[in-house]
Amino acid sequence: MKKPPRRTAERILSTTLSLFNRFGEPNVATTLIASDMGISPGNLFYHFPSKEMLVNALFDEFEARMRHLLPAAADVQDLEHAWFFMHSVFELIWAHRFIYRDLNDLLSKNRHLESQVKEVLQRQEQAFVKLLRGLQTHGLLTQTATEQQRCAIHMVVMLTWWLSYEYVQDPRHAMEDANANRSALRGAQQVLSVLLPYLNPQPKTQLQSLIKVYG
Amino acid sequence: MKKPPRRTAERILSTTLSLFNRFGEPNVATTLIASDMGISPGNLFYHFPSKEMLVNALFDEFEARMRHLLPAAADVQDLEHAWFFMHSVFELIWAHRFIYRDLNDLLSKNRHLESQVKEVLQRQEQAFVKLLRGLQTHGLLTQTATEQQRCAIHMVVMLTWWLSYEYVQDPRHAMEDANANRSALRGAQQVLSVLLPYLNPQPKTQLQSLIKVYG
Repeated sequence: MKKPPRRTAERILSTTLSLFNRFGEPNVATTLIASDMGISPGNLFYHFPSKEMLVNALFDEFEARMRHLLPAAADVQDLEHAWFFMHSVFELIWAHRFIYRDLNDLLSKNRHLESQVKEVLQRQEQAFVKLLRGLQTHGLLTQTATEQQRCAIHMVVMLTWWLSYEYVQDPRHAMEDANANRSALRGAQQVLSVLLPYLNPQPKTQLQSLIKVYG
Repeated sequence: MKKPPRRTAERILSTTLSLFNRFGEPNVATTLIASDMGISPGNLFYHFPSKEMLVNALFDEFEARMRHLLPAAADVQDLEHAWFFMHSVFELIWAHRFIYRDLNDLLSKNRHLESQVKEVLQRQEQAFVKLLRGLQTHGLLTQTATEQQRCAIHMVVMLTWWLSYEYVQDPRHAMEDANANRSALRGAQQVLSVLLPYLNPQPKTQLQSLIKVYG
């Protein structure tokens, strides 16, 4: 019996995500996706008439999950919680790392991403400002409003390009599935370490220990 | 009279650099370079038999200039000097921004870049550690060895991907020549602001003023 179309569309998306993540979007043609799934290019075309539609569907999935996750930043009251939050953000990025691998080129070719990626980064920045404010309210750090804003931007840059930094160190293996756990931990560690110099002495020691244990 | 071959090779490189910077390396075919210069594809092929050879020649030029510039980090004794140094580093990056626009994809396709880019980032990290040590020796900041190392890595991430952050904000204009000055200033500002929280009170105020004046 033939599978219903919706199942096929879902299978196409999950195969595409895994191929994009592994080889990079520019290096995966739709013919490769079809042959990897054992379906005809025509069947793939029936569900997704262009590679851009595949990119957009996967991006929208990522964007929706990120939008769902970010409000938790406002509830962060301690560093364990901050660590857990940042680790979750990083796991999500890892699961859609193809977006980050070729971000600039995707932006230049795709109008949907051109407007949406900017919003994702803005939403992350706002979430991080809330996280910093929460930590300040609970007496963990001391920042002026300017420092808060700048620190949030640095966290966004670190969040968005930490995987690229790892990719430069080891292009052949950095994006492989086997690195998922270690990479998410190092990512959380790098983003949170941006706020280390602002922490008051006792929480500073606590974050340093967290970084040592998990990083 | 025909120009001698060496002149042509130089003209090819400078045209290629400008097209790569403007449109991104993946979007510039060698046929476009030839037609932009009004030479035949065969003439271009005679000088550079592949696009990879063009990329490598331009990268090597960039790498040599960066290697020449970085040792100045060890002589930095004050914040004006640090600002001037970082601004020079950023101007160099701007002049070869195509490398930064599609860094991950270039790395994955090009063995020469795969090994060389990693070394550039390592050399920058070492230079920044020296810069931080110099500032510490002159009583401007206080860091442990771990903080020094982490701060240098953050500076490298900010240096390498600040242009990408600006690109996300405005993909259609961020890489245009008209943005050169402002972009180099903002880049220097962002990289140096990573060390703001480590500065002692008086130099901190001084760097904040420099950022306000130049940024």
